[in-house]
Amino acid sequence: MHPVAGVRLGTACAGIKEAARRDLVIIALEPGSVCTAVFTRNLFCAAPVTVARDHLNRTVPRYLLINTGNANAGTGIRGEADALACCQKLAEIAACPTEAVLPFSTGVISELLAVDRIQAALPAAWAALVPAGWEDAAHGIMTTDTVPKGASTTVKIDGETVTVTGISKGAGMIRPDMATLLAFIATDAALDQKLLQHCLQAAVDRTFNRITVDGDTSTNDACVLISTGGSSLPPISEANDPRYPPLVAAVCEVCEQLAQAIVRDGEGASKFITIEVNGGREEQECLKIAYAIAHSPLVKTAFFASDPNWGRILAAVGRAGVDDLDIDALTLHLDELCLVRRGGRATEYREEAGQAVMDREEITIRVELNRGSAQTRIWTCDLSYDYIRINAEYRT
Amino acid sequence: MHPVAGVRLGTACAGIKEAARRDLVIIALEPGSVCTAVFTRNLFCAAPVTVARDHLNRTVPRYLLINTGNANAGTGIRGEADALACCQKLAEIAACPTEAVLPFSTGVISELLAVDRIQAALPAAWAALVPAGWEDAAHGIMTTDTVPKGASTTVKIDGETVTVTGISKGAGMIRPDMATLLAFIATDAALDQKLLQHCLQAAVDRTFNRITVDGDTSTNDACVLISTGGSSLPPISEANDPRYPPLVAAVCEVCEQLAQAIVRDGEGASKFITIEVNGGREEQECLKIAYAIAHSPLVKTAFFASDPNWGRILAAVGRAGVDDLDIDALTLHLDELCLVRRGGRATEYREEAGQAVMDREEITIRVELNRGSAQTRIWTCDLSYDYIRINAEYRT
Repeated sequence: MHPVAGVRLGTACAGIKEAARRDLVIIALEPGSVCTAVFTRNLFCAAPVTVARDHLNRTVPRYLLINTGNANAGTGIRGEADALACCQKLAEIAACPTEAVLPFSTGVISELLAVDRIQAALPAAWAALVPAGWEDAAHGIMTTDTVPKGASTTVKIDGETVTVTGISKGAGMIRPDMATLLAFIATDAALDQKLLQHCLQAAVDRTFNRITVDGDTSTNDACVLISTGGSSLPPISEANDPRYPPLVAAVCEVCEQLAQAIVRDGEGASKFITIEVNGGREEQECLKIAYAIAHSPLVKTAFFASDPNWGRILAAVGRAGVDDLDIDALTLHLDELCLVRRGGRATEYREEAGQAVMDREEITIRVELNRGSAQTRIWTCDLSYDYIRINAEYRT
Repeated sequence: MHPVAGVRLGTACAGIKEAARRDLVIIALEPGSVCTAVFTRNLFCAAPVTVARDHLNRTVPRYLLINTGNANAGTGIRGEADALACCQKLAEIAACPTEAVLPFSTGVISELLAVDRIQAALPAAWAALVPAGWEDAAHGIMTTDTVPKGASTTVKIDGETVTVTGISKGAGMIRPDMATLLAFIATDAALDQKLLQHCLQAAVDRTFNRITVDGDTSTNDACVLISTGGSSLPPISEANDPRYPPLVAAVCEVCEQLAQAIVRDGEGASKFITIEVNGGREEQECLKIAYAIAHSPLVKTAFFASDPNWGRILAAVGRAGVDDLDIDALTLHLDELCLVRRGGRATEYREEAGQAVMDREEITIRVELNRGSAQTRIWTCDLSYDYIRINAEYRT
């Protein structure tokens, strides 16, 4: 991953849930950086989300403080005090206002945070701060993730090289709504605050907000975009600046890679499934159908079993809540293979061909509604024994 | 199960999916019986649902013809012709109009019906027609069910004994919407058609429409209520007749037993979970929260593991889509144990007490919203390895 001028990262082992596991990360931003974020819309948002939102409204952040192993969610007023106490300790070390620290937590819900262990490990994370710390940090924010998730790209704009680098975590409780689990993306391009927010929203809407593993929206979702201004490119402050679209594209590219990495690493996932719904009257109805398919336990188990039991896909479409849909106009493909035409089984369909597609590890389900020009695309995974094992044994 | 005067049932082995398995049922109604039904609202409703709806609109049914092993769904026009061909054959044997036969199918979706095998087995089912055939019929409609489901009660009304008896099937693809999987309930009380529909709707709304196993609504849901008039009780034709409420109560009792039996036998289920949401502004918001909890794979796996990881329940409440909910007013109980008070962990809560409740096989989750007087109650089950196994191996 390319370092981003103006960003340093430090990771340490605080022993929050397990000993000798990297579980504490500091991300330090050079003065002059700006920062924006989107957070979970779950009403039971975690204490660090409440505190981070508040701090972000009050000052320009200098430090992000992230722990895994405990989500500090469902912990009430005590949880907020705990999040603040961690920020305060880092602020002392960094000699900055407490409000300049944004806290993020992920892990078990409804248990109290081990504040003392986090405070004790902060000096080690502080001492570890380096521009090349992205990969270590990607490890330091993992929960049930089996692989660290990072993405990085560079783009030439007006002859200047601009870098976009990001990390994310997440594998279960993934159905982001306005945000994802934890993701931190930085660019050395200089954007003003308003444009940065616009850029993040555009990227999130097309990437993190288009994935689902299990339909469960986390209490701790947060996605942060940082602009350090460390590149030689002069600042961008208008959306109609011709330098803005290539930057948005680069941020989207990094976000899409990070979002897809979360689905590929979905708890117990053995298949990566793209769902395209085309020909709708509006995107909202395409999304309803796409998520009905993506959340159907029966569709997901059929994919796990590589069983071309595509009647389950039709059943999911039929219960998606798009009430005036003409099912006789519907077409269904798995990759290049047509299964359903005009609402009924395609005459040329053969079970062996269906089996051959289902045996693949990456499969696209394409539904054509044939009633408009709206479309959408989301990514999901199958549902396996391992999902049950991981979530049944999560706290043991 | 008590026989119902005016109803005879016959079951046979047609070899539709497996050899030597009871998979074909005829229910014969004496002339004078009336019959009403509610069907799935899944847009991809199966061919037999389309045909049964049509027949029910055109004449008074004399025979119900039910097969398991194949749902005859996703089979288009050919599927409807197949369903009709089965009805025709039975009509020939019974010397009645084809429209007097209502077809019902359950089993694999998107495969063509073995019409010849069904037609060949009809004489055997016909020969088996007896008033005491309920238990055999309960076996004859099972799919992934591990136990046959029947319920029966008698009630004295005006000194006359009235009987209500029913059977149902279902274990997966269970989130009924206006109906359930297959359920057939009969009473020997005489009700006119309109009142019978009212009675069925009242019972279904409180029972079959309050259960979920996996959130997947079937393409074949149907629930039929038969009134034979075989008892000595004079006909009831007005809802304000004092004899009507005790009859509705008896029908509800039978439906509740059948609905709960479906959840207890939910695919892979090891726990029976009642979810009560009280203190809402309207029932709709209580239902949203109840179903968000019931459909959360994370809540369901925590119950499977007997893990008091109740933060997952809070997270489900928080994403249920009741946007103006004040989470600081919320109280959460598992059976008698208070976990959350005023939105935060109850101070007296101890993990050991949570563990003791979670170890039970039947558990009630009670959420108090404290903002109104609406309430609801639904039933669901946990999500286990066996759900995955059953649905991954379903067609093999």
